[in-house]
Amino acid sequence: MKRVIYLLVAFATVAGVALLKAPASGQSDREAAPIYEVKLPPGYRDWPVISVAHEAGDNNDLRAVLGNDLAMKAYRKGTLPFPDGTIIARLAWVYTASEENDKVFGRQQSFVAGPATNVQFMVKDSIKYAATGGWGFAQFKDGKPDATAKLETCFPCHQPAQARDYVFTQYAP
Amino acid sequence: MKRVIYLLVAFATVAGVALLKAPASGQSDREAAPIYEVKLPPGYRDWPVISVAHEAGDNNDLRAVLGNDLAMKAYRKGTLPFPDGTIIARLAWVYTASEENDKVFGRQQSFVAGPATNVQFMVKDSIKYAATGGWGFAQFKDGKPDATAKLETCFPCHQPAQARDYVFTQYAP
Repeated sequence: MKRVIYLLVAFATVAGVALLKAPASGQSDREAAPIYEVKLPPGYRDWPVISVAHEAGDNNDLRAVLGNDLAMKAYRKGTLPFPDGTIIARLAWVYTASEENDKVFGRQQSFVAGPATNVQFMVKDSIKYAATGGWGFAQFKDGKPDATAKLETCFPCHQPAQARDYVFTQYAP
Repeated sequence: MKRVIYLLVAFATVAGVALLKAPASGQSDREAAPIYEVKLPPGYRDWPVISVAHEAGDNNDLRAVLGNDLAMKAYRKGTLPFPDGTIIARLAWVYTASEENDKVFGRQQSFVAGPATNVQFMVKDSIKYAATGGWGFAQFKDGKPDATAKLETCFPCHQPAQARDYVFTQYAP
């Protein structure tokens, strides 16, 4: 029994140290996007859906906006501002007509996700990112920081949504 | 130490009995959709995204297709047919122009999720649903079986996708 207790204490200690070492956003040591130094959050592809959208125009994409646990809790409770550690992910794919689906519907109407374009993140850290509303921004392509991304344009574009803590996407029930 | 072992054995036994009692699809005792008797799977709103789509025409919706653990594993490994217990959920919302987003983009281009329309499910049980390719179908509105749903039309429409186990939606990487 003593040995079991010792093992439990040892585990709790190791887990505690790991928690102390982990940054608020729970990010790993992978390659970081420039400026904000946001790293690709592990497991984001399995996060729940906040909402979906279609951006026509130059974007021409279908997108899913996902949230980590803190994001989902804040959305569902209506908590504003979002707490530190919140991460919101925007995945996007080329807006692609589906001939296969259209055949079933008997008309042109179905658009599905084609190849992935890029993945963007908003990471809340009210201290680190105080100059940009508490949000760090990042864009990744094929799992690496997107060299074409101009992250300095992110925050100015998000300012009209200041009343919702600079986040445009609203929760889709 | 003996007591700890006893507790572990007791826990494993209880867990085993719980597993034996649970139906393959892990569904609860809530109200079931007619014909296939599919129940609303608890927690489906937090499942990961398989893909997204825009159905124009009469549907006029944006949709997210989500999967339970078995669905996600099968999609990612390319496992066909999907194993018993697989559940695929199709959420949909009214395709809604976003004036707020369009202002930021400086043009009409942004369409977001409006009010939810209904939620559909495909549940794999190769014995129970042998007559319809091993799939049970359901449609819910506001958490209840949708009285307007004509579930007998589901399977005939899905037959063109027979080569992919009657599932149209493909995984969006």
